[in-house]
Amino acid sequence: MELFNLTIDILGMVAFSVSGVMLAMNKKLDIFGVFIIAFVTSVGGGTLRDVLIGDKPVFWLQENIYMYSIIGSVIVAIIFRDQLKYLRKSLFLFDTIGIGLYTMVGIQKGLSYGLEPIMCIGLGTITASFGGVIRDILCNEIPVIFRKEVYATACLCGGFGYFLLEKLPIDAAYPYIGGIVIVISIRLLAVRFKIALPNIYKSSVA
Amino acid sequence: MELFNLTIDILGMVAFSVSGVMLAMNKKLDIFGVFIIAFVTSVGGGTLRDVLIGDKPVFWLQENIYMYSIIGSVIVAIIFRDQLKYLRKSLFLFDTIGIGLYTMVGIQKGLSYGLEPIMCIGLGTITASFGGVIRDILCNEIPVIFRKEVYATACLCGGFGYFLLEKLPIDAAYPYIGGIVIVISIRLLAVRFKIALPNIYKSSVA
Amino acid sequence: MELFNLTIDILGMVAFSVSGVMLAMNKKLDIFGVFIIAFVTSVGGGTLRDVLIGDKPVFWLQENIYMYSIIGSVIVAIIFRDQLKYLRKSLFLFDTIGIGLYTMVGIQKGLSYGLEPIMCIGLGTITASFGGVIRDILCNEIPVIFRKEVYATACLCGGFGYFLLEKLPIDAAYPYIGGIVIVISIRLLAVRFKIALPNIYKSSVA
Repeated sequence: MELFNLTIDILGMVAFSVSGVMLAMNKKLDIFGVFIIAFVTSVGGGTLRDVLIGDKPVFWLQENIYMYSIIGSVIVAIIFRDQLKYLRKSLFLFDTIGIGLYTMVGIQKGLSYGLEPIMCIGLGTITASFGGVIRDILCNEIPVIFRKEVYATACLCGGFGYFLLEKLPIDAAYPYIGGIVIVISIRLLAVRFKIALPNIYKSSVA
Repeated sequence: MELFNLTIDILGMVAFSVSGVMLAMNKKLDIFGVFIIAFVTSVGGGTLRDVLIGDKPVFWLQENIYMYSIIGSVIVAIIFRDQLKYLRKSLFLFDTIGIGLYTMVGIQKGLSYGLEPIMCIGLGTITASFGGVIRDILCNEIPVIFRKEVYATACLCGGFGYFLLEKLPIDAAYPYIGGIVIVISIRLLAVRFKIALPNIYKSSVA
Repeated sequence: MELFNLTIDILGMVAFSVSGVMLAMNKKLDIFGVFIIAFVTSVGGGTLRDVLIGDKPVFWLQENIYMYSIIGSVIVAIIFRDQLKYLRKSLFLFDTIGIGLYTMVGIQKGLSYGLEPIMCIGLGTITASFGGVIRDILCNEIPVIFRKEVYATACLCGGFGYFLLEKLPIDAAYPYIGGIVIVISIRLLAVRFKIALPNIYKSSVA
């Protein structure tokens, strides 16, 4: 289980880094800029979570593995930058698995600090989605998750699902896995069937 | 006094949330984006203050009341979105009362950590005004308080007023209330009489 | 040495403040906005470093000297705003000396918290360069260091240089000074000879 978690964690981090590299290269940033954007996309959400909770130092200062995986993925992504477009589907899958796991990691961390369920769900969502928010702000764009993707909503649902499942008389591993599965399923279904959040603006029929 | 403070605190938080909802809806964000913008507008200043001081976890992770009041106001604001424009004056008043109280809350917190008066005034101003700064950054705008409003200036004056009044041989409650009154008066007068900070740019007479 | 460090620290802070004032005035911000931009440019990098490490409260809340030097430089810079352009070269020199020292200050702080060399180099670079990043974000621009300047790269090289020199059997002061000299030299040479990071984009020959 440990090894499984670590594997998914690294895959998620790789996917987030590569999504950062792709946006940064669209913006024609230099190599250093590309690396920083990849870095904040990967660790930004977890960093904000740790800062809000007061867990210090933040997680990526404690283990070298994060820094090295990101440096490695950025180098590989820059070398194979022309091939990245063919990997779009695999990257989307890693990314989706990543947010599922990140959501649960954030929730567990909140629980370990004795926080209320609603706060834990918020921290899980922050862990999974704020790396992308910081990436978009640094690139001078309104964060994409505020505009059109069922992304944070999937994290919120997974979080609620976890706390519902956790009330059932089942082994502690099931709600955890259940939460991850809910996040991944909602995101995959929403993208597959182009489901968006209900529109709160008057439709402009022209 | 406790109940009075809590009432004003919640009213201020409601006003800040609603101002976030209004900006987010102007930017056509989806429901999740609207909620996040309302949330950071309400708690952003206090969060930055707590992170800078090192008070952990940040205040809104400690009490559910903040999360629930914001969720409640966002839902109500979205439902009555077409009526919001008629409430502009009441909202402005809540907002102004809110920054008065937030300034003093920030100052008190700084004092309780043994910080110097000038730092406390800075923290009070941050508490009152940085929620709006983060809101504007997330919406990809140059923060409005850097451009045209007598907003932070009112907080600074209230803070200085507090420390001046506090030297007088009067009951401890008076400087506190005095500071709030100064913030509110300056903001109301500035808006009423369209007073702005002195212009440091050459006027472009064309 | 203490006095020398403090002098350079203050000179660096003055240079950073003035660079903030210049950008903020380009954006026609009001006096308060100009001050805030100057302030975050000066202390933003060190603040982010302290927040990530969990050193609390952040450094500028502990000593009044930072706040007063920034207030002082902003006032002077606003008064002599028309003369600032003649000081461009001196300011560039202070700024360059400043990032050299800031890089080493960040590395020392990381070491004092028992962090790995690679993390210390990262923290040194953050200390020296993220004030400018936050300045640019607040002014709604893509951070300049992500786009065209050999700035963070100089910090990274100085950091690596420090850890290489530190392995030699020499007095502890030499690697420290060596790191600063490397940062300053690379930045000066890069600007003098217009050296940029290798371009990873196809050249658009038109």
